[in-house]
Amino acid sequence: MTPQPNPQAGAAVKAADRAHVFHSWSAQGLIDPLAVAGAEGSYFWDYDGNRYLDFTSGLVFTNIGYQHPKVVAAIQEQAGKMTTFAPAFAVESRSEAARLIAERTPGDLDKIFFTNGGAEAVENAVRMARLHTGRTKVMSAYRSYHGATSAAINLTGDPRRWPSDTASAGVVHFWGPYLYRSPFHSETEQQECERALQHLEDTIVFEGPATIAAIVLETIPGTAGIMTPPPGYLAGVRALCDRHGIVFVLDEVMAGFGRTGKWFAADHFDVTPDLLTFAKGVNSGYVPLGGVAISAEIAETFATRPYPGGLTYSGHPLACAAAVATITAMEDEDIVGQAARLGSDILGPALAELAERHPSVGEVRGTGAFWALELVRNRETREPLVPYNASGEANAPMAAFGAAAKKNGLWPFINMNRTHVVPPCNITEAEAKEGLAALDEALTVADEHTAQ
Amino acid sequence: MTPQPNPQAGAAVKAADRAHVFHSWSAQGLIDPLAVAGAEGSYFWDYDGNRYLDFTSGLVFTNIGYQHPKVVAAIQEQAGKMTTFAPAFAVESRSEAARLIAERTPGDLDKIFFTNGGAEAVENAVRMARLHTGRTKVMSAYRSYHGATSAAINLTGDPRRWPSDTASAGVVHFWGPYLYRSPFHSETEQQECERALQHLEDTIVFEGPATIAAIVLETIPGTAGIMTPPPGYLAGVRALCDRHGIVFVLDEVMAGFGRTGKWFAADHFDVTPDLLTFAKGVNSGYVPLGGVAISAEIAETFATRPYPGGLTYSGHPLACAAAVATITAMEDEDIVGQAARLGSDILGPALAELAERHPSVGEVRGTGAFWALELVRNRETREPLVPYNASGEANAPMAAFGAAAKKNGLWPFINMNRTHVVPPCNITEAEAKEGLAALDEALTVADEHTAQ
Ligand SMILES: Cc1ncc(COP(=O)(O)O)c(C=O)c1O
Ligand SMILES: Cc1ncc(COP(=O)(O)O)c(C=O)c1O
Repeated sequence: MTPQPNPQAGAAVKAADRAHVFHSWSAQGLIDPLAVAGAEGSYFWDYDGNRYLDFTSGLVFTNIGYQHPKVVAAIQEQAGKMTTFAPAFAVESRSEAARLIAERTPGDLDKIFFTNGGAEAVENAVRMARLHTGRTKVMSAYRSYHGATSAAINLTGDPRRWPSDTASAGVVHFWGPYLYRSPFHSETEQQECERALQHLEDTIVFEGPATIAAIVLETIPGTAGIMTPPPGYLAGVRALCDRHGIVFVLDEVMAGFGRTGKWFAADHFDVTPDLLTFAKGVNSGYVPLGGVAISAEIAETFATRPYPGGLTYSGHPLACAAAVATITAMEDEDIVGQAARLGSDILGPALAELAERHPSVGEVRGTGAFWALELVRNRETREPLVPYNASGEANAPMAAFGAAAKKNGLWPFINMNRTHVVPPCNITEAEAKEGLAALDEALTVADEHTAQ
Repeated sequence: MTPQPNPQAGAAVKAADRAHVFHSWSAQGLIDPLAVAGAEGSYFWDYDGNRYLDFTSGLVFTNIGYQHPKVVAAIQEQAGKMTTFAPAFAVESRSEAARLIAERTPGDLDKIFFTNGGAEAVENAVRMARLHTGRTKVMSAYRSYHGATSAAINLTGDPRRWPSDTASAGVVHFWGPYLYRSPFHSETEQQECERALQHLEDTIVFEGPATIAAIVLETIPGTAGIMTPPPGYLAGVRALCDRHGIVFVLDEVMAGFGRTGKWFAADHFDVTPDLLTFAKGVNSGYVPLGGVAISAEIAETFATRPYPGGLTYSGHPLACAAAVATITAMEDEDIVGQAARLGSDILGPALAELAERHPSVGEVRGTGAFWALELVRNRETREPLVPYNASGEANAPMAAFGAAAKKNGLWPFINMNRTHVVPPCNITEAEAKEGLAALDEALTVADEHTAQ
């Protein structure tokens, strides 16, 4: 699986990268991107013969792992037939992808508007909600990420919003439930649920219910920390939206398509939003694709009135063919069930056991292939291992943890004081255990930075 | 090249489309999308055995035509090697695409930030300009299209902006040069150039030069009518930007990558912007890809300060491999030269000749594979054949023109009162002549609606 090392080829790739590639979210002069030679299943490798077990699924998108042979074959076949075609036509892979997605989305979310990725999905959901309601304000949560185009970054509730928030464009942020660091000083899940709903309702009332077009929430906030909402919370938000004629948008760009052990995270809560955004897992990122699943009522708004949004590659045939093959493979191989069992039988118990042994682990939470470990300096005070949005020296403990994991052949997902365990949904038990062993060792490094 | 008709298969594709695909820019209940069975070179065909010569290049993106065998093979090969990988790594096809693009972009635009399409490219160019200057206002032209995400649609200067312009986000629109319908009552190109620059300078002065981050212009406005700017105009804008510390952004999403008979439209004017946005032609839309080419000075701003923007699929390996193969094929087959000769030797003379014979043709303008015919009721008054942004009955003359073209096997590009002749850059002479003959016939239908 790992080919011969070829450091010379790696050096050439790296040199052209440093000369010409401008990378996301980085100071271009301070980064040192690893040159990656190949990837398969749950692993990738560099040009020097180092292989890494990928506990990140890229950016949480390779739900079926790298280079799934059926999806690769489908892309190759579609490329030979029809790589591309303009959006205003009916095209087989586009029709079929829409049908397969609509069959799986909750409730009556049966019309699919395709985009290239998550941010554009959120942009279009917001536009639909504004035009459907005739209102402009949109509410979203702190501790969230919705993408980096203008409306999507305004909605985002993490520090990546700050430099781009020149035009808040009618976004109002509120606090969602998060018992471990409760914004509402709650002591139980039920209290957290009630208080979070009260806070949301109060904010709606003071903003003016008739001014609010939409509430946009990640069903389970992902990058911000995988905080599964308490039972009743999402149903409560749904009820508030219904009471005030507000469009309820669930962003499942990260949580959707099997990640949580169900097709959509909303399925855990028996809640149907009016709009659901997706990307990533829809085709495991093999070809850029995202979209919005639209309720019958909102689709009806645009039955005779033109929907004023679009993009050149809406419903791109190659991306849609990859989605058809991905969904089919997930169905054939029960990859959603695999994710569920990974969570309940392997990751859940093993991570709980790690938490017991490592003083740096403040909390473990998650479901399916979607887990977060909150690393802390002190379990009593819950002081994070590094401050919010730390960089440089202040971030050294997390950097040391990350370096230790990589030294042990594990590529970890790190965000602030957390590491997320988000491997492919179909990672094998043996691979998961290999990764957990490396994580165990790396946590020993994190433990050195605790102070209790 | 055209396979057997298969109306049953077409009906199934169409049925799933109508049930589940939500289309761009349309009233979902009023559209009747043609089901397309296949495409090759400059043609595509439906399931009923009808073949169309594509004078639209999709949405002006298949600069190398459909199913170019070398690009198809490269996509298939890359799919077998590495379909996808996260953006924070150095990856061969990503490095190589960036290098090939940087080699071709004007001046010192040597760093490439990749996106999925044009709108995201514009979004990121605006963010870079705002952070580089510390200013927020951005200027753009009426008669322009820059994409449909929030910032991109705010910048757009056509009616598609209106329903989404809830937050103008500091965008100021001005008038660009357009001699045929001069906003400045000019009678010569030189006058139009001087007056347009005066208008822009006056607007800058009254907006406050120190408040303006960027001027965003299509080098040659595309969808809005392919209005080649008069000699000196873009150099004049460049000088104004330099004088006031304003970032000059040229949007070459449509005009770039050979469309005008040069790699970039800016090459016609010997002007180097600070940022150049691209998409479409970079890989002929075979896999979604766009990006921003960044000057040394702006890249330097983000050398030690993190660039706060990104997207999951930045530098997608499959999309980048398609770009590498596309650029290589364009180079090997001199497709840019083909576009230049198509304009000078075939389309230019033939369209001028059509204009002489058809009273509905008010003006023909363009270059390379990038031409517009302005259809008018009256050549003297230049009254458009249909009013600005017409629909329904008011748009009947253009609808009749379009239907006539399709009946003759030509798929035309239509925007308001214009038809654009924007075939693949490598369309053969025989194909171009076939299309021109069909256009000739269709213009006879347009002629019936003239009143002079
Ligand atoms: C919940 C959520 N929404 C939206 C996005 C943005 O998606 P993209 O990066 O494809 O624009 C992300 C990306 O991580 C996400 O996690
Ligand atoms: C000049 C220009 N800029 C930006 C865009 C938007 O590109 P996309 O549709 O890929 O978002 C377009 C699309 O036609 C365009 O022509």
